[in-house]
Amino acid sequence: MNIKKGRLFGVGTGPGDPELVTRKAWRIVSEVSVVAYPAPDSGDSFSRQIMADAIRPDAIEVPIVIPMVSGRAPAQAIYDAAAETLLDHLNAGRDVAVLCEGDPLFYGSFMYLLARLRDEVEVEMIAGVSSLVASASAALRPLAARMDVLTVLAAPLDNDRLRDAMAASESVVIIKLGRHLDRLRGLIADLGLMDHAIYISHASLPHQQVMPLKDAPIDAPYFSMILIYKGSDPWIA
Amino acid sequence: MNIKKGRLFGVGTGPGDPELVTRKAWRIVSEVSVVAYPAPDSGDSFSRQIMADAIRPDAIEVPIVIPMVSGRAPAQAIYDAAAETLLDHLNAGRDVAVLCEGDPLFYGSFMYLLARLRDEVEVEMIAGVSSLVASASAALRPLAARMDVLTVLAAPLDNDRLRDAMAASESVVIIKLGRHLDRLRGLIADLGLMDHAIYISHASLPHQQVMPLKDAPIDAPYFSMILIYKGSDPWIA
Repeated sequence: MNIKKGRLFGVGTGPGDPELVTRKAWRIVSEVSVVAYPAPDSGDSFSRQIMADAIRPDAIEVPIVIPMVSGRAPAQAIYDAAAETLLDHLNAGRDVAVLCEGDPLFYGSFMYLLARLRDEVEVEMIAGVSSLVASASAALRPLAARMDVLTVLAAPLDNDRLRDAMAASESVVIIKLGRHLDRLRGLIADLGLMDHAIYISHASLPHQQVMPLKDAPIDAPYFSMILIYKGSDPWIA
Repeated sequence: MNIKKGRLFGVGTGPGDPELVTRKAWRIVSEVSVVAYPAPDSGDSFSRQIMADAIRPDAIEVPIVIPMVSGRAPAQAIYDAAAETLLDHLNAGRDVAVLCEGDPLFYGSFMYLLARLRDEVEVEMIAGVSSLVASASAALRPLAARMDVLTVLAAPLDNDRLRDAMAASESVVIIKLGRHLDRLRGLIADLGLMDHAIYISHASLPHQQVMPLKDAPIDAPYFSMILIYKGSDPWIA
């Protein structure tokens, strides 16, 4: 007898507030029998915390633990193993939801599982509220309007590349701040953009912080970003 | 006697599927007594359609009709008048939700009302699933990974600016296609990027279309975009 394969869902859980989860993500997670999520070496998984009240008590949970080490080889082996575990469940007919903070395809790790499983099973994506738009909402500022060029940059990029992109865009979002915040601040000041730069951490969560970049802490948490908006006259229709 | 002013909510309704609305947006819209939304000259408002099942039967509805004309002066007068109408409701103590397709601050018109009302009343933003991430989900493709530079461009920009930004980014999203699609296609072919370019229209809706850009129709609908991904090895962890 052939068992009908389960379906794989890539589920965006949004930026942190469980109410910023889509109705579809909430429904799917409350229906599936297997829930996987990225997890730290120790401590709670953020995306699991967001969805805690949706997960069925009898669901099988699959934490995917990515150790905080540099280099790609360990991560590849972990995603290989996780894909195999999930494929076993899918082949046994179980639907699987993989939880992803924000949106699964916006700098998320879901794509590594997608690459390994998309030819094996049916995959459905459930887009989520990205940290990008959540941060603009937290700051009450436009992300982009009209013909603005909007560029998303990762803080570890080198100064030349960051500088060129900032010069060429009306709106810039800088992610992955961490220990790069101080260098970024110098660069942004040199470009005369400090008055346009806002720092946001933990958008949508109770401990959310929004402040001018010049007042931001030296050590930025992982869930923080800088918005720079120099678009012309964003406030006039 | 002083009446407590109502609160103003900027509500992202997501890309089109009513299930891709956040739980918070659904709740707020089902609670408020005034619901405003952009509407075309004739026909239905898209964001109202998405939220139809959440709006209270006794809600006061305020369509904001933006005629399809060029120039900013008519739009300014319309937003001035709409802000005044909403302010009357807010001053009378009524909570007001303004519906916005996708996310309210990602190329949305909500910022024109925000600019006019933010000093008058308490404003709360409810971020939404943007068309940006919904299109990547529809295409089952990464929007960006790792250190990728992601740039969002409006199709009416001139060729030089589009060309420079495409050269400088691993991932490019082009919005506001309309009658510019044919020119864009030529430009993308000249840059040798045609094999990386996907056309998506009406992401998340039943009539969603996803295809290689080379097969896309000549006339692109308003709700369509192009994704170009040339990031290195997106599929390997």
